[in-house]
Amino acid sequence: MIRVSILGTGNVAKHLFATFMKIEDVKVVQIIGRNKIALKIFGNSVDTLSDFSKISDADIFIIAVKDDAIAAVSEYLRNKKGLIAHTSGSVSMDVLSGQRRHGVFYPLQTFTDDRKVAKNSVPYCLEAHDETDLDLLKNLAGKLSDKVYEVNSEQRKVLHLAAVFVNNFTNHLYHIGKEICDEKGLPFAILQPLIQETLDKTKQLTPYQAQTGPARRGDSETISKHLEELKKSGFGEVYGVLSKSIGKLYGKDTNGQHH
Amino acid sequence: MIRVSILGTGNVAKHLFATFMKIEDVKVVQIIGRNKIALKIFGNSVDTLSDFSKISDADIFIIAVKDDAIAAVSEYLRNKKGLIAHTSGSVSMDVLSGQRRHGVFYPLQTFTDDRKVAKNSVPYCLEAHDETDLDLLKNLAGKLSDKVYEVNSEQRKVLHLAAVFVNNFTNHLYHIGKEICDEKGLPFAILQPLIQETLDKTKQLTPYQAQTGPARRGDSETISKHLEELKKSGFGEVYGVLSKSIGKLYGKDTNGQHH
Ligand SMILES: NC(=O)c1ccc[n+]([C@@H]2O[C@H](COP(=O)([O-])OP(=O)(O)OC[C@H]3O[C@@H](n4cnc5c(N)ncnc54)[C@H](OP(=O)(O)O)[C@@H]3O)[C@@H](O)[C@H]2O)c1
Ligand SMILES: NC(=O)c1ccc[n+]([C@@H]2O[C@H](COP(=O)([O-])OP(=O)(O)OC[C@H]3O[C@@H](n4cnc5c(N)ncnc54)[C@H](OP(=O)(O)O)[C@@H]3O)[C@@H](O)[C@H]2O)c1
Repeated sequence: MIRVSILGTGNVAKHLFATFMKIEDVKVVQIIGRNKIALKIFGNSVDTLSDFSKISDADIFIIAVKDDAIAAVSEYLRNKKGLIAHTSGSVSMDVLSGQRRHGVFYPLQTFTDDRKVAKNSVPYCLEAHDETDLDLLKNLAGKLSDKVYEVNSEQRKVLHLAAVFVNNFTNHLYHIGKEICDEKGLPFAILQPLIQETLDKTKQLTPYQAQTGPARRGDSETISKHLEELKKSGFGEVYGVLSKSIGKLYGKDTNGQHH
Repeated sequence: MIRVSILGTGNVAKHLFATFMKIEDVKVVQIIGRNKIALKIFGNSVDTLSDFSKISDADIFIIAVKDDAIAAVSEYLRNKKGLIAHTSGSVSMDVLSGQRRHGVFYPLQTFTDDRKVAKNSVPYCLEAHDETDLDLLKNLAGKLSDKVYEVNSEQRKVLHLAAVFVNNFTNHLYHIGKEICDEKGLPFAILQPLIQETLDKTKQLTPYQAQTGPARRGDSETISKHLEELKKSGFGEVYGVLSKSIGKLYGKDTNGQHH
């Protein structure tokens, strides 16, 4: 049995709580948060607490608060015996180095309100100051997911950057695709199978191998036409820079300059 | 029973052939191609032909050759009674206007050798000069997929452009994500669940609503750090331009300038 407490009441806290509750040999001791209304969402099946001076001990304290509040919140755990781990992709483990036992429990996924994320679609990236604490985090994560990785602070920072490309920027490209469809009265759903196949291909081929399109072919005539079509939209610069980046990768000299 | 012939022996021809063969009330009359070795791949279950002057009649001729060969190839069908349709996203229907019955049968999907694309993951975008011919194409496409759209040449051109964003450019972002992982010895698979969730979210939220990340928040400190980390990689410009585009969309003034 692992006894876990969560500090914070946001998206990550909610996801972790819901996941822990489904696992027999994990017990959630307390949810601690400054936001009393948010605490109510956790219901009566768990002890909720807004007074940070009354925190009980636990095997693991998971700090799932805003990045820049992690250090301050960890101070309330100074006399605890349990392991203290934050959930941030971009904050170094060292922010907790004032605590004897500390580590990182980073779920590499995007959580938003109103969307449940399936159990096995969350990779956990773990780090700890001590070997035995790392084992404890591995033990916990292993109950939640079969995707458990040991990732140091330097790697985690870089993963977070990679996530900006494959999550934030990809989503923006979806937005642009949708805008282009909307303008001509086409449903965005028409692109969904293509989007799915783009992703599925990378399970069989590397993205480098899977690349297609005018920029890869060095088809500057099509690129020019597209840039012309995009003039009013404001998305020409995105098109130009990405085409240029692809062209460079495959040694093509296209006119994908943004203008 | 719809009698179909295919001109061309490439990726689209192969996909369509494999799909037609599975459908009882579609008969493939001939596969016509200039490439005799490629014709062999279609096996003995269908009549293959490399002499374009000996084409039999059919209900529908599907021209699945390179964009700039469509017009020339269609000339061989001048005296046929059947409907002539090309499969290109970017070529106007008018390229076939010399033929009495003509239209477009555009599968909005990415086909490459060695990858089977599932039946219902191909939307068909249809256009025809005559109403009855459009019905014939709808009838055929309806046997292959439940995603059948009527799309005119102007809309199709724009769809093709949207596809560049959601397919070609997204794939390039996957490539960048993989490069960033590779450099730190992290497996690209670690990002797969996040990539899948990015896509799945857009089935519930619009990409506009689903957007997260430093550029959306206007978190210029993180953006600066990321640009610094990317300096050596050559991907800073892509990061900068996409961050700027997101920032503009949400009215944030970040320092996401590329440099
Ligand atoms: N969302 C994701 O997709 C995701 C994924 C992986 C990792 N993470 C990381 O997980 C952590 C939490 O993220 P989240 O998305 O769950 O954030 P969130 O939904 O914005 O929730 C933040 C929580 O932090 C609390 N908080 C903020 N400042 C505080 C302070 N000074 N003292 C006490 N509590 C404070 C907030 O309380 P109030 O409601 O009172 O403001 C709220 O409960 C962050 O480190 C984040 O980087 C997030
Ligand atoms: N691949 C896709 O993802 C995709 C998706 C939707 C639509 N399309 C469209 O479908 C069509 C075919 O694309 P594809 O990917 O199947 O192309 P592909 O794999 O490159 O095959 C092209 C075919 O065209 C033939 N061809 C080229 N020039 C010719 C000529 N002058 N006379 C006769 N045959 C000629 C080629 O024969 P050789 O082998 O002898 O060169 C080959 O059989 C294009 O209009 C394309 O835009 C493609």
